Amino acid sequence: MKNADIAIIMGSDSDLPQLEEGIRLLQDFGVPFIVEVSSAHRTPERTVQLIREFEKVDGKIIIAAAGGAAHLPGVISAHTRLPVLGVPIPSALDGLDSLLSMVQMPGGIPTAVFGIGKSGAVNAVLFALQILALERPELGGKLDAFREEQRLGVETKNRLLQKKVEDLWES
Amino acid sequence: MKNADIAIIMGSDSDLPQLEEGIRLLQDFGVPFIVEVSSAHRTPERTVQLIREFEKVDGKIIIAAAGGAAHLPGVISAHTRLPVLGVPIPSALDGLDSLLSMVQMPGGIPTAVFGIGKSGAVNAVLFALQILALERPELGGKLDAFREEQRLGVETKNRLLQKKVEDLWES
Amino acid sequence: MKNADIAIIMGSDSDLPQLEEGIRLLQDFGVPFIVEVSSAHRTPERTVQLIREFEKVDGKIIIAAAGGAAHLPGVISAHTRLPVLGVPIPSALDGLDSLLSMVQMPGGIPTAVFGIGKSGAVNAVLFALQILALERPELGGKLDAFREEQRLGVETKNRLLQKKVEDLWES
Amino acid sequence: MKNADIAIIMGSDSDLPQLEEGIRLLQDFGVPFIVEVSSAHRTPERTVQLIREFEKVDGKIIIAAAGGAAHLPGVISAHTRLPVLGVPIPSALDGLDSLLSMVQMPGGIPTAVFGIGKSGAVNAVLFALQILALERPELGGKLDAFREEQRLGVETKNRLLQKKVEDLWES
Amino acid sequence: MKNADIAIIMGSDSDLPQLEEGIRLLQDFGVPFIVEVSSAHRTPERTVQLIREFEKVDGKIIIAAAGGAAHLPGVISAHTRLPVLGVPIPSALDGLDSLLSMVQMPGGIPTAVFGIGKSGAVNAVLFALQILALERPELGGKLDAFREEQRLGVETKNRLLQKKVEDLWES
Amino acid sequence: MKNADIAIIMGSDSDLPQLEEGIRLLQDFGVPFIVEVSSAHRTPERTVQLIREFEKVDGKIIIAAAGGAAHLPGVISAHTRLPVLGVPIPSALDGLDSLLSMVQMPGGIPTAVFGIGKSGAVNAVLFALQILALERPELGGKLDAFREEQRLGVETKNRLLQKKVEDLWES
Amino acid sequence: MKNADIAIIMGSDSDLPQLEEGIRLLQDFGVPFIVEVSSAHRTPERTVQLIREFEKVDGKIIIAAAGGAAHLPGVISAHTRLPVLGVPIPSALDGLDSLLSMVQMPGGIPTAVFGIGKSGAVNAVLFALQILALERPELGGKLDAFREEQRLGVETKNRLLQKKVEDLWES
Amino acid sequence: MKNADIAIIMGSDSDLPQLEEGIRLLQDFGVPFIVEVSSAHRTPERTVQLIREFEKVDGKIIIAAAGGAAHLPGVISAHTRLPVLGVPIPSALDGLDSLLSMVQMPGGIPTAVFGIGKSGAVNAVLFALQILALERPELGGKLDAFREEQRLGVETKNRLLQKKVEDLWES
Repeated sequence: MKNADIAIIMGSDSDLPQLEEGIRLLQDFGVPFIVEVSSAHRTPERTVQLIREFEKVDGKIIIAAAGGAAHLPGVISAHTRLPVLGVPIPSALDGLDSLLSMVQMPGGIPTAVFGIGKSGAVNAVLFALQILALERPELGGKLDAFREEQRLGVETKNRLLQKKVEDLWES
Repeated sequence: MKNADIAIIMGSDSDLPQLEEGIRLLQDFGVPFIVEVSSAHRTPERTVQLIREFEKVDGKIIIAAAGGAAHLPGVISAHTRLPVLGVPIPSALDGLDSLLSMVQMPGGIPTAVFGIGKSGAVNAVLFALQILALERPELGGKLDAFREEQRLGVETKNRLLQKKVEDLWES
Repeated sequence: MKNADIAIIMGSDSDLPQLEEGIRLLQDFGVPFIVEVSSAHRTPERTVQLIREFEKVDGKIIIAAAGGAAHLPGVISAHTRLPVLGVPIPSALDGLDSLLSMVQMPGGIPTAVFGIGKSGAVNAVLFALQILALERPELGGKLDAFREEQRLGVETKNRLLQKKVEDLWES
Repeated sequence: MKNADIAIIMGSDSDLPQLEEGIRLLQDFGVPFIVEVSSAHRTPERTVQLIREFEKVDGKIIIAAAGGAAHLPGVISAHTRLPVLGVPIPSALDGLDSLLSMVQMPGGIPTAVFGIGKSGAVNAVLFALQILALERPELGGKLDAFREEQRLGVETKNRLLQKKVEDLWES
Repeated sequence: MKNADIAIIMGSDSDLPQLEEGIRLLQDFGVPFIVEVSSAHRTPERTVQLIREFEKVDGKIIIAAAGGAAHLPGVISAHTRLPVLGVPIPSALDGLDSLLSMVQMPGGIPTAVFGIGKSGAVNAVLFALQILALERPELGGKLDAFREEQRLGVETKNRLLQKKVEDLWES
Repeated sequence: MKNADIAIIMGSDSDLPQLEEGIRLLQDFGVPFIVEVSSAHRTPERTVQLIREFEKVDGKIIIAAAGGAAHLPGVISAHTRLPVLGVPIPSALDGLDSLLSMVQMPGGIPTAVFGIGKSGAVNAVLFALQILALERPELGGKLDAFREEQRLGVETKNRLLQKKVEDLWES
Repeated sequence: MKNADIAIIMGSDSDLPQLEEGIRLLQDFGVPFIVEVSSAHRTPERTVQLIREFEKVDGKIIIAAAGGAAHLPGVISAHTRLPVLGVPIPSALDGLDSLLSMVQMPGGIPTAVFGIGKSGAVNAVLFALQILALERPELGGKLDAFREEQRLGVETKNRLLQKKVEDLWES
Repeated sequence: MKNADIAIIMGSDSDLPQLEEGIRLLQDFGVPFIVEVSSAHRTPERTVQLIREFEKVDGKIIIAAAGGAAHLPGVISAHTRLPVLGVPIPSALDGLDSLLSMVQMPGGIPTAVFGIGKSGAVNAVLFALQILALERPELGGKLDAFREEQRLGVETKNRLLQKKVEDLWES
């Protein structure tokens, strides 16, 4: 396994579309990461092995995405004291099952959980960067710039909105 | 580990009150069983080790009870092809979280799930006995007797009810 | 009725698409089975009659699928001590109603419940095979091979994922 | 079975406290009725037999109360074209499971469902009386009187409330 | 208002597609009925006036369909002692909001509630016919024939299913 | 009816404990108000009559509290264009049913809804005062003082907390 | 900022389609308003600044729409004593999350909440107009006319429905 | 403000009982922390000021607990790029509302969420320690010891359980 700060592990390759925007963001920030498919249920040994290898290459944070009976982040948390961030993937019950099966962990083995689907994946990535930024000021600067850009984006969208509302009026 | 047909594994010893009636039932049927506390998250290795030992003593069926992010039955299912029966324990959300995090398993790794709490525990035990009865006619006979007794119990309760309803009338 | 180990009973023929993958799996494993439509509500006598016939041909396990007020598995469980496996079919409330009306059985009459829809159907079939495998070592071998194939499938998908993530990078 | 217009069937004698107020109401209205315990799951034959006997004594309406996987009203509906009124009993999930497993009946076999618990039981009884009142003007008169009394009760309570609110002021 | 046994009142004309199959069924049974749009909120006076007129033409049963904060059946129930049957229409929350706002009526003013959407509408119509059949034997006969046809339909579908399952095998 | 700016109408006198703190607040602010029990279902005419009388005495805002199938605020909204504020009262389903049956009003007849139970009642009262304060500067001043007091309350509680946390340390 | 009575603030420009009908309604009533995009989370300072400016131009009522963890109306309520009306936007969980995160405000800081999505937006606008109408009789007249038009619309739709139902008959 | 690595901010002092076990844990680990009451709604300025001061004393991680419309963690996240950990406090809807209003944050402003109530509070604390341990090996060692102790605790409880099960047998 190559050196990486962040590992993204998804329970199924079908989860990728929910994670793409988050992965791109990670690429933009230039932080080394790996992406793996591994299932808590179908490949439990592989999952533990990935954790061990990631710890060996001095990995820092694991993002785990899964849907339905979404045990992956909890199972990973059981095997490491690296911070584990869970992303609930939409499912038969719109992701409510995924969310509840991630977030209600018993006291003693923590998993940090983010929102259902794409927003949650983006936020797990940003949160991982915020953790890394505690010790890497340059990352903090990049995150500040990202937030500022986001803030300006709202203002731009607001200007476009004014035009759209005028159009409503005329239609 | 002693020889046993059925293993009951609970995620926490605080789950025992929910399982007691089921355990008594198992005692009444005279089927050898073991009861263990082991957590999917706090003692993952112990959990796998228990499965391996239970398989070695030619165990048949595993009943796993857990609450909240109730991963125990699914994690056990991932490590064995013995039938695994899950019992959701009541929790912060009345057991809805426990139920959903057990039942929505991904295709390929099955867990059979029963009702929330005491009724579910009793039913998991009865279901395990029904599986064993497929090959043990004497167990089938005992199960038939149990159902007959249950049927008669309804009739007895019905007679008592007639009296209670009359009392309502008079009060 | 022909000899069969497993009976799949669905409450409505419109449930078939949810069950197809499970049925194919059963065909692949070469275990004799029957498939029937029978409703707990529209054809209650036929439902009981099917159970009686299935018991006569020495059937072992019944898989029952239904949606909405999904009483079929519970009604079947009330009439037999063969293991009954319930598959909740998606419905007006995404299958939450189907799930709850199956799983919350009263103590005394057990039904084993699996996930909502296609994954649940596949898992009910695999679980039935796991029960049969308790006494049929050759089935156990096939199940082990299935799990191994599944495991390798995850690894293959992981390799494909690596390529996709690189493509993300370049896009 | 004695002659009766209305049959109240409860899945378990533990449901009685939820039904008492409704039963008393029926007694007050002087309509002949029977009360029975019979379970859709534990005593399915007894349940069907009760329906047949009730039809023979020219019974009109069946009220069925059950909790959890509350199949009783649906199972009864499957065996008769007498109007069946379902009362969901509070359960592990506060009666939401009971409600959903009653109300989501498939098209073709209707069950009329009322609110969870005591209010639902009272309303099922009143609804049964409203059906009977379609052909019995004297019952209609009694129902009108009941509604008028209820209306006056609100006014009385309102007067008491005025006093309580003044007391609030002074406290 | 013309003479009619049954009134179907919908809160919005957009509810019609959910009710069409039920209305057709009513036409097939040849029972006189009326269909009206009237809202509990937008036309409260019209709603009360419709009830009064329907009572004058000796109407028997009111079916009320509504979605969201579905007050229509409850509001109608408050103004008549004719049996009121509620049909929850799918909504922003898939009809769960419609269902709960219909079914949880306070003790004293009953509304009978059926399933969400089309099945519920069909069942409300059948239930209305079952009430009428209490006094009209010929309607009872038609309902029996309908149930028998329904039963045979399941058998026909079962035969078609056998063919489809064979096709699965070959594909 | 005496002159009042605000009317509090509750569907049942049993709702009073949920409303008491809100009523006291109204008393503290010295705004004239009336409190009435009137049910959308049990006393529909009385409910409409109350609205008409309240409009005649130049009433401004109606607060309506109800539980279960909580139609009261919606029914009132249908009969007036005064602002109607709904307070969902806890119920069999913890108030989720009350909330949904209030908030999902159809477009055209608005009801403003607040949180379940006591906090919601307090907030409905404060919101009513905020509306009145749009035209009454002195009320605005009192509201500002209330917020300031509330703010200071948090700081006081914070000081007490520091002590409690130290105690934790020592225990 | 221009003078306006009502401010509509949305958390994201993607919320506009849910608000368009409400905005058009506001245009029809001729009440001056502004529309802005501002996020509680991405642009917290801008949000507070908008409130301050709106208060300066003597604004009266703020409508705030947001989805998911929909904090915008609550955050605005924390910074002003102008009435704040919340509109929950549909989201990953169909808007249930948006609704709950708006409506369950702590006692002391009120937010008035309306239905999920388009109907809620229309109703928030109408409610704002009802508040303004307390002091502006001409607005009250317009609202009465709107309600009358709405009432007539139901009658027109009813006439069209009669035709459609006849067509059903013939098809 | 004194130097501290971790800040625990609760929306109300009534949340303390849910957080006590977590706070004790933090004391045991010897990591400097502060505990404050501050509300997103009642004291928004104080909340922002606390964040600024905590950043100045080189604070690392903020744990925020709140119930109902639980905006506190999200509001804090909007004002800092320090990692923010949310703990949903039980509420009128058992904490489901608290959970959803924390976890469904929009993409761009992350909040990490833990389970409802006491377990969630303990886990948030442990997770914060896991973040700090990335750079402080001695903390990592303590966390490993904690996990080992926890593991041994399960084994101890298992031994006690064996005794209890034997007692069941004898009773």
